Amino acid sequence: MDEVRIIEVKRSIFEDNDRDADNLRSELKNKGVYLLNLMSAPGSGKTTTLIQTINRLKDKISIAVMEADIDSDVDAIKIQNATGIPSIQLHTGGMCHLDAEMTRQGLDNVQLDGIDLVILENVGNLVCPAEFDTGAARNAMILSVPEGHDKPLKYPLMFSVCDVVVINKIDVLPYFDFDLEKCKEYILMRNPKATVIPICAKTGEGVDVFADWLLKEVTNWKDKK
Amino acid sequence: MDEVRIIEVKRSIFEDNDRDADNLRSELKNKGVYLLNLMSAPGSGKTTTLIQTINRLKDKISIAVMEADIDSDVDAIKIQNATGIPSIQLHTGGMCHLDAEMTRQGLDNVQLDGIDLVILENVGNLVCPAEFDTGAARNAMILSVPEGHDKPLKYPLMFSVCDVVVINKIDVLPYFDFDLEKCKEYILMRNPKATVIPICAKTGEGVDVFADWLLKEVTNWKDKK
Repeated sequence: MDEVRIIEVKRSIFEDNDRDADNLRSELKNKGVYLLNLMSAPGSGKTTTLIQTINRLKDKISIAVMEADIDSDVDAIKIQNATGIPSIQLHTGGMCHLDAEMTRQGLDNVQLDGIDLVILENVGNLVCPAEFDTGAARNAMILSVPEGHDKPLKYPLMFSVCDVVVINKIDVLPYFDFDLEKCKEYILMRNPKATVIPICAKTGEGVDVFADWLLKEVTNWKDKK
Repeated sequence: MDEVRIIEVKRSIFEDNDRDADNLRSELKNKGVYLLNLMSAPGSGKTTTLIQTINRLKDKISIAVMEADIDSDVDAIKIQNATGIPSIQLHTGGMCHLDAEMTRQGLDNVQLDGIDLVILENVGNLVCPAEFDTGAARNAMILSVPEGHDKPLKYPLMFSVCDVVVINKIDVLPYFDFDLEKCKEYILMRNPKATVIPICAKTGEGVDVFADWLLKEVTNWKDKK
């Protein structure tokens, strides 16, 4: 199954992205669909983390994935092949982020009936995606060990808008000057309520904790409908 | 010396960034100043690479550094302490890239007399900085091994605008699924003229090759003045 649908999404014509995002969030709430906006720098391991997480959750809840990229469809194909769940690729046409309208255009191409969780893999970028509310229930981000523990100092907005920060590639901690405790401290400086979860997506270490966090989130979202 | 000048740069008021960039390039050419625009994803090792490169070149040519970041001044301080050369920090006020006018505002704060090379460390981002000509003589980028060899497929513009691609962190090649030959092939697909230089900024391996490339560039630039 080496083909996925590719949707070309266009920038919002609405001036007020925040209002548009709030509307989308309410609509999804009414449908009982939890949307997770997953952000990170390029190459931090978003796709591998998703595959591991989805394989832990797909027998418990119904999941769909939207992969955003400037170009290419390698991620959507990878996810679909590795998990068997429906994935579509959103092409942003050079845009560095997704806004609520672009997210909505993607969702229009997902069969939402019976879906509990839609995961949106945002463009790999620590700057622009943080500025645009997509309408997601929650924002998550992945910071990988090779990027360094100082990233919350350099990309303050990204870390302040994320409810959960997954620290990936902890298997290579011995080879990098990465201080996990200092990193947690910097993250909490940006957002004292953030949940920090160290994992290794390659080996699966710690992924259960993230999957449990997400399952609880989805359950609560539906309960409070 | 734990203090550096911090300059708040503002987005261009000019509509035509390309023309503005061409003008800046000509002005710098007339002054014999070579401006290198260095781009990469967050955490790829730009600052460490710069320190190693500058320490190999600073007795041969006069160098100044401008570090762009959304926030924080850790990079400019690190460079200044490790190399002793003048560094200023540009704050972009949340902006995800630098344009020619922002670069000019930075340069206005650098003492250019007698300077051969100014290195501009752009905001850590593989998307937006590629879209804006800064007025630099050349664009360089750093891709680090942990980010994966598929990045030229996902960030086509970045790889097509760069004259040289430094592949950093080759010391951790054994711990990652990174295919160096495939990566070179993807880079050359985006830009057949690109120079690809594998290095390890931490140990210094390969940095001589990049330093030689840069020295030759600066010399040619001045010769053709």
